[in-house]
Amino acid sequence: MSEPSATDRRARERATGRAPGLSDALLAEVVDALAADALDLAAGLAAVLHPADLADLLEQLDAADRPRLVRALGEQFPADTLGYLDSEVRTRLVEDLGPEAAARIVARLETDDAVELLSDLDPALQRAILQALPLSERAFLEQGLAFPEYSAGRLMAREFVALPDYWTVGQALDFLRAHDDLPDDFYEIFIVDVRFRPVGAVPLSRVVRSRREVPLRSLSMKELHTIPADTDQEQVAFLFKQYGLVSAPVVSPEGRLLGTITVDDVVDVIDEEAEDDLLKLGGVAETDVFASPLETARRRVPWLLVSMVSATLGATVIDAFGASIEQLVALAVLMPISAALGGNAGVQTLAVVVRGLAVKELTRANAPKMLLKELAVGALNGTAIMTVAFAMTLVWFGMLDLAIVFAASILVTITVAALIGVTVPLLLERFGFDPAIASSVFVTPTIDAIGFFTFLSLATFWLL
Amino acid sequence: MSEPSATDRRARERATGRAPGLSDALLAEVVDALAADALDLAAGLAAVLHPADLADLLEQLDAADRPRLVRALGEQFPADTLGYLDSEVRTRLVEDLGPEAAARIVARLETDDAVELLSDLDPALQRAILQALPLSERAFLEQGLAFPEYSAGRLMAREFVALPDYWTVGQALDFLRAHDDLPDDFYEIFIVDVRFRPVGAVPLSRVVRSRREVPLRSLSMKELHTIPADTDQEQVAFLFKQYGLVSAPVVSPEGRLLGTITVDDVVDVIDEEAEDDLLKLGGVAETDVFASPLETARRRVPWLLVSMVSATLGATVIDAFGASIEQLVALAVLMPISAALGGNAGVQTLAVVVRGLAVKELTRANAPKMLLKELAVGALNGTAIMTVAFAMTLVWFGMLDLAIVFAASILVTITVAALIGVTVPLLLERFGFDPAIASSVFVTPTIDAIGFFTFLSLATFWLL
Repeated sequence: MSEPSATDRRARERATGRAPGLSDALLAEVVDALAADALDLAAGLAAVLHPADLADLLEQLDAADRPRLVRALGEQFPADTLGYLDSEVRTRLVEDLGPEAAARIVARLETDDAVELLSDLDPALQRAILQALPLSERAFLEQGLAFPEYSAGRLMAREFVALPDYWTVGQALDFLRAHDDLPDDFYEIFIVDVRFRPVGAVPLSRVVRSRREVPLRSLSMKELHTIPADTDQEQVAFLFKQYGLVSAPVVSPEGRLLGTITVDDVVDVIDEEAEDDLLKLGGVAETDVFASPLETARRRVPWLLVSMVSATLGATVIDAFGASIEQLVALAVLMPISAALGGNAGVQTLAVVVRGLAVKELTRANAPKMLLKELAVGALNGTAIMTVAFAMTLVWFGMLDLAIVFAASILVTITVAALIGVTVPLLLERFGFDPAIASSVFVTPTIDAIGFFTFLSLATFWLL
Repeated sequence: MSEPSATDRRARERATGRAPGLSDALLAEVVDALAADALDLAAGLAAVLHPADLADLLEQLDAADRPRLVRALGEQFPADTLGYLDSEVRTRLVEDLGPEAAARIVARLETDDAVELLSDLDPALQRAILQALPLSERAFLEQGLAFPEYSAGRLMAREFVALPDYWTVGQALDFLRAHDDLPDDFYEIFIVDVRFRPVGAVPLSRVVRSRREVPLRSLSMKELHTIPADTDQEQVAFLFKQYGLVSAPVVSPEGRLLGTITVDDVVDVIDEEAEDDLLKLGGVAETDVFASPLETARRRVPWLLVSMVSATLGATVIDAFGASIEQLVALAVLMPISAALGGNAGVQTLAVVVRGLAVKELTRANAPKMLLKELAVGALNGTAIMTVAFAMTLVWFGMLDLAIVFAASILVTITVAALIGVTVPLLLERFGFDPAIASSVFVTPTIDAIGFFTFLSLATFWLL
């Protein structure tokens, strides 16, 4: 089960210095320089880093040292470092820098990164930064902020290349060579009609391979996946993954081209969505590595409270059979094993179903097939584990009847766990809730309670 | 805690038909056509789909119908559909088609997709397909298969554009226009020295914006992230995410350019790695939506066995305090609540730590800080939950002493859960194991046992 290979290799790469980025030694030097108030030295050390690695460095520093280093770097501070920072760290840093300094950095960002940064801030600071920006930039950012959170409109960059549909490759090349205000990186030229609606997209690899007289239109890709600006980012990520897109045009309700989403933004979304499912299954709402202990505790405590309330169900079942336990304490001893097995089998099914829904391998069409399969798996593994449980109980307590009752209840519990593990997330999805919240917090205690009831009632009526 | 918004929007998009891909209606029509043996009709319906959607359709069909549909489509079957299929489904389909038909499809695939497909097959079938291929293609694929699994060499495509470092934009454009055997999509031109070692990369967006006389060398990006062919795919995904790469050159140990990895391949890897963590945390080794019940049961049963063995620890603790439980059954009633809370708090910490390690937000440098923070969170939430537990126990059993003992043990259990939730994955990572296997299977039962011991020993020495 253990797969050390990937991590092994990672450790080896770190050792041979092949892994890029921030070394522990450099981090220590910067920390020392900051502690000694040698700001120029710290800035000199940090200035050689790639923005992504500089972001890692800032994350590792104490919160108070981050604005000191950024101020020391001055104009050398690469604005896109902010795009690589954890949002918690970024918000705090921008607050500490103050609106004027922050505005100077924001002005150098691409619109999508600037909008993402501003959207996390509290309204007063957001307004202060916007007011410190030149009018033209402010307008773009305010438009971006007007789109709903987690929408395509928030993700898109306003920088793109769109040309009329009757142009040729030669006209396009002449235009591109003559204009300086084009985006740094783009992968496609969008073709637009007179109303600025995208009617095609030409990958640059086709532009460079074609003669000057070829019309752009004839080079356009077969399918154009236009994305309405209010599309949810999860759906955007799905489109990019499903069709292997590198970039896609974002359009207004009238179909006008507003901006473009590129795959690097989507990689972040895919990462976030996967993280979301992982953390919810673990009973955490969001990642909190860089949040304060008080804030972290505040975010996690509701899940614990729900867990406590759900666990009371199992406790009530046990309470009802108190007399049986008084007569035969072995029942109390075996109960946590039943709970662990049921919980584990349930979470196994749950993880596969939540993931299957997320990647749309599991749909309404094949859900009944999935349920039957999971029940079969539950019955198979229930039988296998039942055998082990029977032998263990017999050896431990030397009571054949108890071993039979415990083994039977294990089979029921594991099969019920499969049933609940499939149906609860499917029902949540069906009624518009996030299936990932069907986490251990709800599913496991329910399975436990059913397991306890099965075991204790069988024991009461047959053994005692 | 529930966040229905994203799923709500998704449901709405489905309803308005804006979500792309395979409709339930089309699926039903194809299924009916296959059932009625109307193969031409089924092929006609399926032929209009994008390869990604055709892959979804195949996944939803019964295993026996998949080769029927593919044969019915004949030359109309887009080879890259195979790249979008779940690997389980793909392997089965290739087996059913037989080596000759499979080889005809494989010959139309890009090298990276072909290598991925072949690597999943059993050796005999792999050899049979390779032998049915033209010699030139076979050589490329055999080279690809020689790289270790999950390495950059397996991920890379052999199709790329590399030009000498002294060429100009004009020479490059003339070359590209004159050659027909270039890859369909590429985003950069690699510049190589006389030994075919990459010395730079020029994004196509810079090529199209530059005059013919500009030397390619002057357009090269500042950093070139070359990837040795034996680099693990997890490290490749990290590089792409960290530096926002769109493609990167893969090199031999001598530094020669071998191939290129593009971001669309990396998106799949990121997805797989995230899935891996999610499933391991749930106690499942790999996704098994399309595996048979027997195969699924076989893969999951080891985790259940481990779970059973670990749970025996808690059972042994309870057994040691059997006399106390006989005296006061309330102890047995409250134990599952302690287990649920400890397990939940532990998995919360575990999920955050596993995720933090995966995205490298959590490093050796800030691990002590993280441990202190999680202990503080544990103490804070332990105190909050302790209060609720105290009140609940007092109301339920009317015993002040019992309420105090239970509350105290809850505080200890939740704090210990934080300690274990941080240290176990960190230690696993340190000793070269995958931290995600520190799943509920190991961590939860350990916390349970400690919680039981705390509660039962306090109760025995103070209450009884």
